[in-house]
Amino acid sequence: MQYAVQRDIYASPKKRTTTHTMPYQILRRVLCLPLLSLCLLTTDGALAGDKEPGPDATPASAARAVILIIGDGMDEQQITIARNYLHGASGRLLLDQMPLRSNSQILATEDNMSGRPVYVSDSANTATSMATGAVTSRKRIATSAGSDQDLETIVELAAQNGYRTGVVTTSSVTDATPAAFATHISHRLCENPDNMEEVSYLDIFLAACPADMKANGGKGSIAEQLVESPLDVILGGGSKHFAPMAEGANVSVLELARQLGFEVVVSREELVQAGSSGRLLGLFSRSTMPVRLQGENGRSAEEPEASALNHLHRYLGEVTLPEPMNCEPNRAAAAMPSLRMMTETALNRLSKDNPKGFFLMVESASIDKQSHERKPCGSIGELQQLEEALASALNHAQSHPNTLVLVTADHSQAAQLVPFESHYAEYPIPVYTPGKMARIRTPEGSLLAVNYATNSFSHEEHTGASVPLFSNEEGLGRVPAYITQPELFTIMRDYLGL
Amino acid sequence: MQYAVQRDIYASPKKRTTTHTMPYQILRRVLCLPLLSLCLLTTDGALAGDKEPGPDATPASAARAVILIIGDGMDEQQITIARNYLHGASGRLLLDQMPLRSNSQILATEDNMSGRPVYVSDSANTATSMATGAVTSRKRIATSAGSDQDLETIVELAAQNGYRTGVVTTSSVTDATPAAFATHISHRLCENPDNMEEVSYLDIFLAACPADMKANGGKGSIAEQLVESPLDVILGGGSKHFAPMAEGANVSVLELARQLGFEVVVSREELVQAGSSGRLLGLFSRSTMPVRLQGENGRSAEEPEASALNHLHRYLGEVTLPEPMNCEPNRAAAAMPSLRMMTETALNRLSKDNPKGFFLMVESASIDKQSHERKPCGSIGELQQLEEALASALNHAQSHPNTLVLVTADHSQAAQLVPFESHYAEYPIPVYTPGKMARIRTPEGSLLAVNYATNSFSHEEHTGASVPLFSNEEGLGRVPAYITQPELFTIMRDYLGL
Repeated sequence: MQYAVQRDIYASPKKRTTTHTMPYQILRRVLCLPLLSLCLLTTDGALAGDKEPGPDATPASAARAVILIIGDGMDEQQITIARNYLHGASGRLLLDQMPLRSNSQILATEDNMSGRPVYVSDSANTATSMATGAVTSRKRIATSAGSDQDLETIVELAAQNGYRTGVVTTSSVTDATPAAFATHISHRLCENPDNMEEVSYLDIFLAACPADMKANGGKGSIAEQLVESPLDVILGGGSKHFAPMAEGANVSVLELARQLGFEVVVSREELVQAGSSGRLLGLFSRSTMPVRLQGENGRSAEEPEASALNHLHRYLGEVTLPEPMNCEPNRAAAAMPSLRMMTETALNRLSKDNPKGFFLMVESASIDKQSHERKPCGSIGELQQLEEALASALNHAQSHPNTLVLVTADHSQAAQLVPFESHYAEYPIPVYTPGKMARIRTPEGSLLAVNYATNSFSHEEHTGASVPLFSNEEGLGRVPAYITQPELFTIMRDYLGL
Repeated sequence: MQYAVQRDIYASPKKRTTTHTMPYQILRRVLCLPLLSLCLLTTDGALAGDKEPGPDATPASAARAVILIIGDGMDEQQITIARNYLHGASGRLLLDQMPLRSNSQILATEDNMSGRPVYVSDSANTATSMATGAVTSRKRIATSAGSDQDLETIVELAAQNGYRTGVVTTSSVTDATPAAFATHISHRLCENPDNMEEVSYLDIFLAACPADMKANGGKGSIAEQLVESPLDVILGGGSKHFAPMAEGANVSVLELARQLGFEVVVSREELVQAGSSGRLLGLFSRSTMPVRLQGENGRSAEEPEASALNHLHRYLGEVTLPEPMNCEPNRAAAAMPSLRMMTETALNRLSKDNPKGFFLMVESASIDKQSHERKPCGSIGELQQLEEALASALNHAQSHPNTLVLVTADHSQAAQLVPFESHYAEYPIPVYTPGKMARIRTPEGSLLAVNYATNSFSHEEHTGASVPLFSNEEGLGRVPAYITQPELFTIMRDYLGL
């Protein structure tokens, strides 16, 4: 069975019968329930989350691999919006066909030693949880809250144990999610050597990482640490962070990468023509890679237009909701490699002539970034990109049996699927969202409305709901129905026997 | 193991090791992965969603039961908010300890025969999906979109096959969710005989069900249909809907219930003293039952207060966010039976001296209703009520092995867990929600902020995300990782062999 993100591979949701021969049916009836109990349950009735069967259960020559796919901000709202748009309300995403679905509770703390919980996270502390098993504070990259200690990552552990490692993303490769898998720094915005003493925007001070400078005994910026990390494959955007001179060196970070053995590619064509072994650094845009889909003529969610009378009282006057729109291809993305292409390049490179195995993190970053900017078409297209990368991962797992494929989100986001016409429309008053709204025509002929109303700023807030976690068959018996986000690290570490 | 909603029964999330003896470990290692594949997968790699093992696999004398627990509006945001408040961010709900977690896609259609999908649902069409396996339009109770045909419900099918049946809710028992399991009517608001020709509010026409009147060959109002249904147990609020005279009769609906064999109780004391067999109708409040928790001094979410300057431009002036508050007990609920008490009464009544088994629907209704009213403390308390009812159901299942316990939501809701201070607080401008916000002090000492911003009306809108679905061990191999909501009906029907 070849996985692909095409409508025709989706099984009908109504299909409930199978055509097994009788002995198979009898075998299942007689054996399965007791054996499922035995296999899935521990003696005290709790879910089996223990370590076995571990790598020692497989022949020493069999390679093992973990592919962790992160949909940044990909919560249930985002998934449902994408399902409805891409496949219709009754259709199925590839995610929906994964055999195991779990839920991951996000944990964060204040940046001090008291450890009081913070209920809404960012991509820095959440990626740190997944990469290291620790709970830390927002903005931190694989460093501890309050004490600023480096936290060992799954990439470092895997590399120490002879596994190859890679990160693939549609954001800058120096962005929080990929960074937390292989670098250690007190603030996510210290992405390149020129950002260490001050990061500011419109003269507003945002961050600084003086203690992380090499001159002060630190490990340098995220870009420098990435090229000095054990990573074999780094693919994504963010070339501008590799242009500055490496601290204390007379070469750029990019040149440093070449010196450290990276083959460097900067376009889709170069990616296609790249060699098939050795270290690979691909930087395909200055910062975040352009997204696949956009609203008609670049439209994003818009404020409903209230009449003058409505400004006097919310039950008076009238309101015009945003005109429905189509989603359309974003031409800026045409020259980019897809997330699928980058993922397949990474999988080939990491697995070729590799008897040990690998760890690969793949991120579809702009599900989140487009939601911050109130662009639902953008988020839908990037969730489609994640689906395609997942198809590649599942195909790889089919020809490489000891491959654990996990898909999850790092945190929830602002977008809400709301009625395209209020459920209170029978009342003769204007009813409308106080935030911004987009109404999208779906291919199946309905209108899908998305609301963004977490704040009054140019960018929406994250939200704090726990997030979905999916796994292929390798996760059965290993991934319980509910985990806290740091436990994902433990599951991956145990699978690789680290 | 006795299930109870108390902190001390929650297993440590960090607990990963077990103490099985060696033969058990070896058995699991050798047998489990291949057998799990055999049991969970069909030959084409799709998830096993077929009907076996069915009731024929159990001795004829063994009773079978389905307990379906519905948290109205209980989406991932609501669950996470309740988890953080009730047990702390690192704590676990009883829901989190269920061995199986799945996801249910909500389906609705326009009220015509063309069947164009509608992406946001209400409790009427969603309960209809679960009760009948059909997709219908909003407001409809077990009737078909466009054609207004009655759709047979799981309660009717179960009763025809000799099972006892019951519905328990914290709303009026005539409200959409319980109604859809045993009645058929074109509009959810036609709850009693006086509502059939017109339901209006402030002279605004909302609904009418003339074709459903008995005089016109229909089955009458929801209240009349409930007492004339096969239901053995009906517990909840809504006594006002049983006071009117039954259509064409010279007795009230309540008196009609007595004539039809219902023992009627109207207080917690009477519930405690009720007999233990026969039909039981309990009506403990005029409409929705009072909720357990409320905001300090009855506070709900409030609008941030912007200074005059901020009204000129959103980046000017300043904003005062709502003062943090505690949740406190709602004294109005003190005299009410808890959802747990009602559930246990129903379980005892339905299972006593019953070799066949039963179907019971239990709803915690005001997770949704309090969210409509922007009252996060109220939703938290009602999710706690659901947890307690779940503990009762799991205890019952432990002493009655062939009991499938399912927990799900009917649709998503407006509440969002947002940062208590904006993630953009470093910018020297006021950043705040355009909707309403509550900031709640949690028992673990942090602040939890909840945002409501779907509309400008007195009541928030539902949202359209797919919802969680949980099952006890009986669901393993029967409940796939993803379903559409109507498939829940099929799972329950097949389990009972209907």
